[in-house]
Amino acid sequence: MTDIRAYLGRVAHATDAVLDKLLLGRTVYPPSIHAVMRYSTFAGGKRVRPALIMAAYEACGGKFGNKKVLLACASIEMLHTFSLMHDDLPCMDDDDLRRGKPTAHRAFTEALAVLGGDALCIFAFECLARTGRIDIVEDIARSLGTRGMIGGQVVDIESEGKKVGLKTVEYIHTNKTAALITASVRTGALLANAPAGTLGRLTRFGRHIGLAFQIVDDILDEEGTTAQLGKDAGSDRASGKATFPSVAGMAASKHRASALIRQSLNDIAFLGTKGTMLAAIAEFIGKRAN
Amino acid sequence: MTDIRAYLGRVAHATDAVLDKLLLGRTVYPPSIHAVMRYSTFAGGKRVRPALIMAAYEACGGKFGNKKVLLACASIEMLHTFSLMHDDLPCMDDDDLRRGKPTAHRAFTEALAVLGGDALCIFAFECLARTGRIDIVEDIARSLGTRGMIGGQVVDIESEGKKVGLKTVEYIHTNKTAALITASVRTGALLANAPAGTLGRLTRFGRHIGLAFQIVDDILDEEGTTAQLGKDAGSDRASGKATFPSVAGMAASKHRASALIRQSLNDIAFLGTKGTMLAAIAEFIGKRAN
Repeated sequence: MTDIRAYLGRVAHATDAVLDKLLLGRTVYPPSIHAVMRYSTFAGGKRVRPALIMAAYEACGGKFGNKKVLLACASIEMLHTFSLMHDDLPCMDDDDLRRGKPTAHRAFTEALAVLGGDALCIFAFECLARTGRIDIVEDIARSLGTRGMIGGQVVDIESEGKKVGLKTVEYIHTNKTAALITASVRTGALLANAPAGTLGRLTRFGRHIGLAFQIVDDILDEEGTTAQLGKDAGSDRASGKATFPSVAGMAASKHRASALIRQSLNDIAFLGTKGTMLAAIAEFIGKRAN
Repeated sequence: MTDIRAYLGRVAHATDAVLDKLLLGRTVYPPSIHAVMRYSTFAGGKRVRPALIMAAYEACGGKFGNKKVLLACASIEMLHTFSLMHDDLPCMDDDDLRRGKPTAHRAFTEALAVLGGDALCIFAFECLARTGRIDIVEDIARSLGTRGMIGGQVVDIESEGKKVGLKTVEYIHTNKTAALITASVRTGALLANAPAGTLGRLTRFGRHIGLAFQIVDDILDEEGTTAQLGKDAGSDRASGKATFPSVAGMAASKHRASALIRQSLNDIAFLGTKGTMLAAIAEFIGKRAN
């Protein structure tokens, strides 16, 4: 049996060690910005995106723990943290809790939450550049832009309190969440110099698990408790968020999440046993719904 | 005589043409984010940083109008615009006017000012990656980070209303303003594959004119009118900003700005006539004080 939790733990441990080396501390001037960057980066994420980079890299013939790959793992996690810090701001989702802790603008100031997010984004690109792979810098930047993560975030904010259809919800999910997840899978494959065909199939895999990830997130927001979630349960409904359950209903949402995971497993069937860990991560993402 | 205004005009024209091609419009979904990005980018900047890239490139043997160089010019201007959009936010400088027009969060929403800035930063890195020069991606990212532009912005915000010394003001200026100006000069030199010695001298030149640029900005804020500045005159004093005139006095500030320009001209004396345009830009920056 594939021990997915042990794998996530190994990747998180290795990624966090690199992040700890890369990120400056309070002793470096100006202390506040380095403090907020560390605070949000080490707030207890599961490091799913780094796990996807590493698993895709291994699936394409790479070896666990490669230094350039870990640099990419650390970078992608900084980019993810940057997006969360800005999402949580009063002018966006206005969230007080994230992973059970006060959000950056609550624990520090709003200015430091904006600048800390900016700094993590910028530093991530500096670190990505250090991998020497300019194609990956461009690929990740594209996935984060207005036709990727930022685009999804814009429509998410602008749909609040409005009646939107399933097409809009899928747009939000595909861009806000699936884009960076897909970029993670692609990064692992690109670092392993995977052929174009493999890259294409892994891109589809990324989109399917990315979309499933956000649907499951929406389901948990409805069904979970605040203690389980580490953030206010039911906050999506309270703020009038466009979610999959609110548009399609709970049963259809669960059905869709399961179908997406099945599709994703199909996408990587060609990898055979080399795809075992990617498949386990896909199933892990799907199981969070139960 | 070197016609500096004509040169700035030529660079601005060429840079704006590239920006116009690169930046998506309202017809591309989601329209609001593309609108705010264009609004702030085309708000009437003088394109001093692109002029520095191009002049440094020419000084090191390159030809005016090279495509990769113009891509870098457009990228640096996006990065500058990103920093202004976030600087103007209510949680930072809380400015209503920029270049005579309502700031992004006034003309649009605060969420779009945050996300528009984020998107410009990310898109700039995508465009920089397209130059194929990963060393430049890394160099610019470093200049923008917590030991560069963001670090300066943090100390600027945290010094408001406090009594600070000249050392702190110089830290703010060197990082908040001079870092990106220095990176612009370096980018031009790197694109022309300048030798290390030349790069080192041009880096000093950039620091000197960058520091002068911000001192002159502070002087203008005190002495100019709102109509001249395109923003509220005396706003630095009103918000208790740490500025060169407030710490060292007006006479010493003007003296220091002139001295820095002289130093900068000295830095590039080795270029001979090849440095004519860089020298003209330095003098242009200094003259704004009169």
